[in-house]
Amino acid sequence: MDIRVGTGVDVHGYSDDPDRTLALACLQWPGERGLDGHSDADVATHAACDAVLIASGVGDLGTVFGTDRPEWAGASGEQLLGEAARLTREAGWSISNISIQIIGQRPRFLPRKAEAEAAMSAVVGAPVGVSATTTDHLGFTGRGEGLAAIATALVTRG
Amino acid sequence: MDIRVGTGVDVHGYSDDPDRTLALACLQWPGERGLDGHSDADVATHAACDAVLIASGVGDLGTVFGTDRPEWAGASGEQLLGEAARLTREAGWSISNISIQIIGQRPRFLPRKAEAEAAMSAVVGAPVGVSATTTDHLGFTGRGEGLAAIATALVTRG
Amino acid sequence: MDIRVGTGVDVHGYSDDPDRTLALACLQWPGERGLDGHSDADVATHAACDAVLIASGVGDLGTVFGTDRPEWAGASGEQLLGEAARLTREAGWSISNISIQIIGQRPRFLPRKAEAEAAMSAVVGAPVGVSATTTDHLGFTGRGEGLAAIATALVTRG
Repeated sequence: MDIRVGTGVDVHGYSDDPDRTLALACLQWPGERGLDGHSDADVATHAACDAVLIASGVGDLGTVFGTDRPEWAGASGEQLLGEAARLTREAGWSISNISIQIIGQRPRFLPRKAEAEAAMSAVVGAPVGVSATTTDHLGFTGRGEGLAAIATALVTRG
Repeated sequence: MDIRVGTGVDVHGYSDDPDRTLALACLQWPGERGLDGHSDADVATHAACDAVLIASGVGDLGTVFGTDRPEWAGASGEQLLGEAARLTREAGWSISNISIQIIGQRPRFLPRKAEAEAAMSAVVGAPVGVSATTTDHLGFTGRGEGLAAIATALVTRG
Repeated sequence: MDIRVGTGVDVHGYSDDPDRTLALACLQWPGERGLDGHSDADVATHAACDAVLIASGVGDLGTVFGTDRPEWAGASGEQLLGEAARLTREAGWSISNISIQIIGQRPRFLPRKAEAEAAMSAVVGAPVGVSATTTDHLGFTGRGEGLAAIATALVTRG
């Protein structure tokens, strides 16, 4: 059996636009300040995409959804993650699981953890665990300038 | 064989209390400035707990040791990590290993690396490798505001 | 089969020396500002070294290439990574893959991604995937103070 691991990181800064809603872990968070970005800036799904695409050797967010494929411009994190999982399987890999940790002071993630995991697992077609931690008010996430996520994926073949 | 991976991060800021001793990687570090937190603020064990709990799908620090289980309030990192390993096995998983990297300018970790690895491996009941790196005086760990740790765990079943 | 995972992080600050060339992911980057360090400060290879050495239990950058082995002082990241891979195999492990993510605003990595992956995979003797991400101008990498890399390695035995 061939086994591979991949780790991805993503960061987005908070938006100044009060009408921008936070998109995080395949969920919408009404009332939470949104993140800036051309896309929906969902750091959890973006980190997960890079993790699984790097693990399988398919590429990364830039090579797979870059300027060569304009049909993905503005796609939601959920759409990108579903396509990343599809491409990983198309390349012959089975996804064992993806683990994601969101790093920031807000939102309070725990009340919606189960909902986020169910949504992301459905999109990926494999178990996705999502957790959140703060940095004790240190660094850019601690100062509330942005949100970060780190994801690790495991894929097998044969 | 079912294989899963999990990654956890933890950060704590340094304490202003000169009497607070640093707890790190299941060791006490007399003479080193302590970290703030309700618990002993051992970033290495906390990151390891999240990594193994996310890998096994048991939960995370918040769901497993949160307000529902007041008997864990104020528990040491060592106690939390032992319980996280026990719950992981109770859920049917075998722990392959846990890898931890401590990120900060101090303490000088190398002289006590073997001691920390022996202590953590005994608590987990599986190999735990612990390393440390600096950030070249950059960022919040580089400025000596706090200490960070990142841990990755691998678990198998069947 | 015995399977282990390891994660390593490395950070170096930018050099004030305009003649210092950036060394990154086993490539030279003429025209890009170099990083400071006793060695070539290649954060991608250094993070990969720690990841694979921690996974295999061989040690880490400090124990393997430290003051006990002065012949490695000033070695390039490529030389260190080749030796880390050799020691990992000597200890009985096969390297499944290494995944690396470079975190910083520069250089533009995508145009040389395939070249970097080919160079690193040849040095390691196993698939190495390399990706890059920015932090949306946040934190020390976002302010252009330094460059970070995170690597995760998977090794098997038996």
